[in-house]
Amino acid sequence: MIGCQGHWSYVFNGIRNGAQVSLAAVSGGGNDMTRVKEAAEEHHFHPADYEDWRTMLHEVKPDLVCIDGPFELHAVMAAESLRCGSHVFCEKPVALTLEQLDMLEDVWKKSGKHLRSMVGLRYDPAFLYAYRQVQAGAVGKIKFIRTQKSYKLGKRPDFYRKRGTYGGTIPWVGSHAVDWILYYSGSTFERVTAYHDAEDNFDHGDLEIAGHCLFRLNNGVIADAGVDYLRPLSAPSHGDDRVRIAGTKGIIEVMKGKVHLIDSEGEKVVDPPAADRDVFSDFTTELVTGRPALVSDLETIELTRAVLLARESADKQETLLFAGEAK
Amino acid sequence: MIGCQGHWSYVFNGIRNGAQVSLAAVSGGGNDMTRVKEAAEEHHFHPADYEDWRTMLHEVKPDLVCIDGPFELHAVMAAESLRCGSHVFCEKPVALTLEQLDMLEDVWKKSGKHLRSMVGLRYDPAFLYAYRQVQAGAVGKIKFIRTQKSYKLGKRPDFYRKRGTYGGTIPWVGSHAVDWILYYSGSTFERVTAYHDAEDNFDHGDLEIAGHCLFRLNNGVIADAGVDYLRPLSAPSHGDDRVRIAGTKGIIEVMKGKVHLIDSEGEKVVDPPAADRDVFSDFTTELVTGRPALVSDLETIELTRAVLLARESADKQETLLFAGEAK
Repeated sequence: MIGCQGHWSYVFNGIRNGAQVSLAAVSGGGNDMTRVKEAAEEHHFHPADYEDWRTMLHEVKPDLVCIDGPFELHAVMAAESLRCGSHVFCEKPVALTLEQLDMLEDVWKKSGKHLRSMVGLRYDPAFLYAYRQVQAGAVGKIKFIRTQKSYKLGKRPDFYRKRGTYGGTIPWVGSHAVDWILYYSGSTFERVTAYHDAEDNFDHGDLEIAGHCLFRLNNGVIADAGVDYLRPLSAPSHGDDRVRIAGTKGIIEVMKGKVHLIDSEGEKVVDPPAADRDVFSDFTTELVTGRPALVSDLETIELTRAVLLARESADKQETLLFAGEAK
Repeated sequence: MIGCQGHWSYVFNGIRNGAQVSLAAVSGGGNDMTRVKEAAEEHHFHPADYEDWRTMLHEVKPDLVCIDGPFELHAVMAAESLRCGSHVFCEKPVALTLEQLDMLEDVWKKSGKHLRSMVGLRYDPAFLYAYRQVQAGAVGKIKFIRTQKSYKLGKRPDFYRKRGTYGGTIPWVGSHAVDWILYYSGSTFERVTAYHDAEDNFDHGDLEIAGHCLFRLNNGVIADAGVDYLRPLSAPSHGDDRVRIAGTKGIIEVMKGKVHLIDSEGEKVVDPPAADRDVFSDFTTELVTGRPALVSDLETIELTRAVLLARESADKQETLLFAGEAK
């Protein structure tokens, strides 16, 4: 495991759910790994502790690396891991610039190894249940998808204040909101128009307090993702995650952990069952048994390109086409 | 009153709420006026019935005309009424093309009379209550507005099937969704990017089954409006009208007739009080007493330009600037 700046705890969650891995080594890669080492001890792992993450990769040659270092190093850490013959489970976005992403995609293609980002919210019970309903045809042909991530801002660490170390709100918060579009539509993106706004950000430097991305997908679906840090601290939960998928046979919606479905039989609200998998153990199961996980390597690349192009669209105030970026 | 293709009943609703008008004359302008004449009788009016609406305008010279004829005639009927010295209460959108709108705007400016469109949903109890909360500073400085109109399609009359007589889903359904953006933001529009889609429209010709408009406003607010006819017939209500307004101090939302507010004191859900005014009597009160109505003539023009430019954006798949259209 390299770093612990984001969702590294998905690894231990996956282990609790049966992921058959043992933790051979850790390296901070710029982060203080105390919390990771404590979690390792709880799970009776005794990882070697490397000062230098590159040395660790080359000496340990792990089957799988969890990358959760500084955001701006995701791509270089992931690429080096793939080059060393390791599969990669990486915090999203896996790159902070389109140049980094192009580099990483090249390395991934040549490596024959897997690259998967931590889109854990695909596995949230309500979003997973809605996904299975959509797959089963509950809404018919999808026409329109709308997603929302609204977070509390609070007081963020310094690295959130600089584009170079944070990446921006559309890539960071939007990774989930845009990933749901990929997830439910099963389509790649055709074009994006986005806006974001760093004014009134409560003294958070470059951090955009709100952003919005409008996509046309290659299968014709219209989709939009709204992200903001405007949720008041007094709100009952950290985030207000939503999806609304409207199709020719019905509308399904995730809101406050529940799934709302309107179809030919009327309206119902479902408390979703517990999820039967999680993002990390689903990945290790794919590696071991070949059962495809709910998210693929290609989607990891596509999602990253989508959020980075959306950020560029917002910076330039221009609509951008994905075709021009295709390889 | 000319025509009865849309929301002409707002007039009688306003009269029940105390609007001090009497109905001097009606003309179908292409519509069968039976229902209007029945409503007139209930209210003890004995309007003259004119075959030709132009003759009616020139002979009767009413103080105020309600225009609700075929959509494609709104602009010409409104312009002729203004020229005859009448104020105009007109079904939205007040024009189906930008050329019609330019013509109507010119006539309106020269007339010294008022032109108001039927944006009755500003007066819906929940939307009105939310408006007053926003005006009172409940959400602080607005950063992001999201609106939704989702309707049942059912089987629509023939005029909905042709762009020339229907105008399109963004102008028709979107008039409300875009008007809420004007209403809550108090800002004009800077640019728009929109999509719409007439595939899978259940045999409704040109009618777009879904559309989406992303706006940047001149005050910096990011705003988007989603419209669709995908609400299943089995749904409990005809429409699913929503607004979400996120600002620096809180988030207010209208959904299913209730107002949800999260601010520094936590989350609350409010059953809004009954509205103290309606779109028609509010207009007649302005005409009589000078108390400004909740919607202005300038907003009527701005809204119409916004939905028509959004439709053009969707047709061309291009972002369009409002500045280029300014006069």
